[in-house]
Amino acid sequence: MAGGGAELKLLGTWPSPFVLRVKLALSFKGVSYEDVEEEDLHGSKSELLLKSNPVHKKVPVLLHNGKPVCESQIIVQYIDEAFAGTGPSLLPADPYERAVARFWAAYIDDKLLASWLQSFRGKTEEEKAEGLKQTIAAEEHMEAAFRELSKGKPFFGGDSVGYVDVALGALVAWVHAGEKLYGFRFFDAARTPLLNAWVDRFGALEAAKTVLPDADRLAEFAKQRMAEAAAASNK
Amino acid sequence: MAGGGAELKLLGTWPSPFVLRVKLALSFKGVSYEDVEEEDLHGSKSELLLKSNPVHKKVPVLLHNGKPVCESQIIVQYIDEAFAGTGPSLLPADPYERAVARFWAAYIDDKLLASWLQSFRGKTEEEKAEGLKQTIAAEEHMEAAFRELSKGKPFFGGDSVGYVDVALGALVAWVHAGEKLYGFRFFDAARTPLLNAWVDRFGALEAAKTVLPDADRLAEFAKQRMAEAAAASNK
Repeated sequence: MAGGGAELKLLGTWPSPFVLRVKLALSFKGVSYEDVEEEDLHGSKSELLLKSNPVHKKVPVLLHNGKPVCESQIIVQYIDEAFAGTGPSLLPADPYERAVARFWAAYIDDKLLASWLQSFRGKTEEEKAEGLKQTIAAEEHMEAAFRELSKGKPFFGGDSVGYVDVALGALVAWVHAGEKLYGFRFFDAARTPLLNAWVDRFGALEAAKTVLPDADRLAEFAKQRMAEAAAASNK
Repeated sequence: MAGGGAELKLLGTWPSPFVLRVKLALSFKGVSYEDVEEEDLHGSKSELLLKSNPVHKKVPVLLHNGKPVCESQIIVQYIDEAFAGTGPSLLPADPYERAVARFWAAYIDDKLLASWLQSFRGKTEEEKAEGLKQTIAAEEHMEAAFRELSKGKPFFGGDSVGYVDVALGALVAWVHAGEKLYGFRFFDAARTPLLNAWVDRFGALEAAKTVLPDADRLAEFAKQRMAEAAAASNK
């Protein structure tokens, strides 16, 4: 791995899909870094996190020689630009293809992830059902996007992993954890056959395997958090 | 104005701050384009819009030789990259400065604009009050951002207008319209003296003046829409 002598620290929490996205980008670029886990996931945040991201107070934060970069998609673009000479490029070179990749990466956060979170965090059963419905619609859009971007090749980026693969790849471990928890498979074979195959293809890559957490551990973590949330709401 | 022989069409509606952002980018770059106004702001959308942005079905859409680019911030980055040889660069060259500019541009949409919309579209008076409170907090963050990015120079981009100026500049006409409508001045002199001065400085630029709509016309438009919304909710 190469880091160009730079000091890179990633402030994160291991289950966060937003943190995983940054870890994937660093792993595919072959850039080494120090992984700094925020110890207390339940509230109190480290001084370093609060100082580094005073606006949102959220992980992930990438510290490059002490200078903080925040927001996962912005961090991934930063890594691609600051380490342009290291490993493969994540964003394509062509301006139009770059715009298309940015469009779908934004879609993953604004629609796919937002609906998926609503499907289990919704305040009412109706809200949850609406979240699930929108998740399925978003999955279908992503399936069409895969067809358009991959052009018959294995990844959104074509022959190799690109920006959209990294943005969506952070969900791969959660796909398996979600299956264990709810029996609901994100990107299942019937609705989204291309993405169903992509999930396995992406998860089998060495650079992804070293980063993505174990699905059982993720499912256990999610169960614990739900139990805590239920206990808190019954107080 | 130079367009490199390219055919550029912008699908938009004249009051939209997201469309104005794209118009500002094209104006500052000196790139000429055809302005295609979506005629019916009330619902039915043109075939061209639905075909060009089938996912979100929203303006703005920039058609470059027939190929659509959607989402205002993605369009602005596209313009900066596709017309790199034309006019000034909006994003800085340095990767870290680019990340910081992207961070604040995202903040404008995710926090400042979102809270501001909630301040008058909130379902309850409480929601509206919360929106106003958050708008003021967001303004203060933007004031600090201006201090950090401008380093004593006239714009977020330094001596000349950059990516964050264009992202926020779309609100300049709405600042004046909002003052007429509600007597509330976004970026007022007491809370945000630097941005208060920036609003006037930005609005006085020739490239902005040719693009930003008249504040009276905007206020009139907003009044009409509110009256229609009130009539619809009383039906």
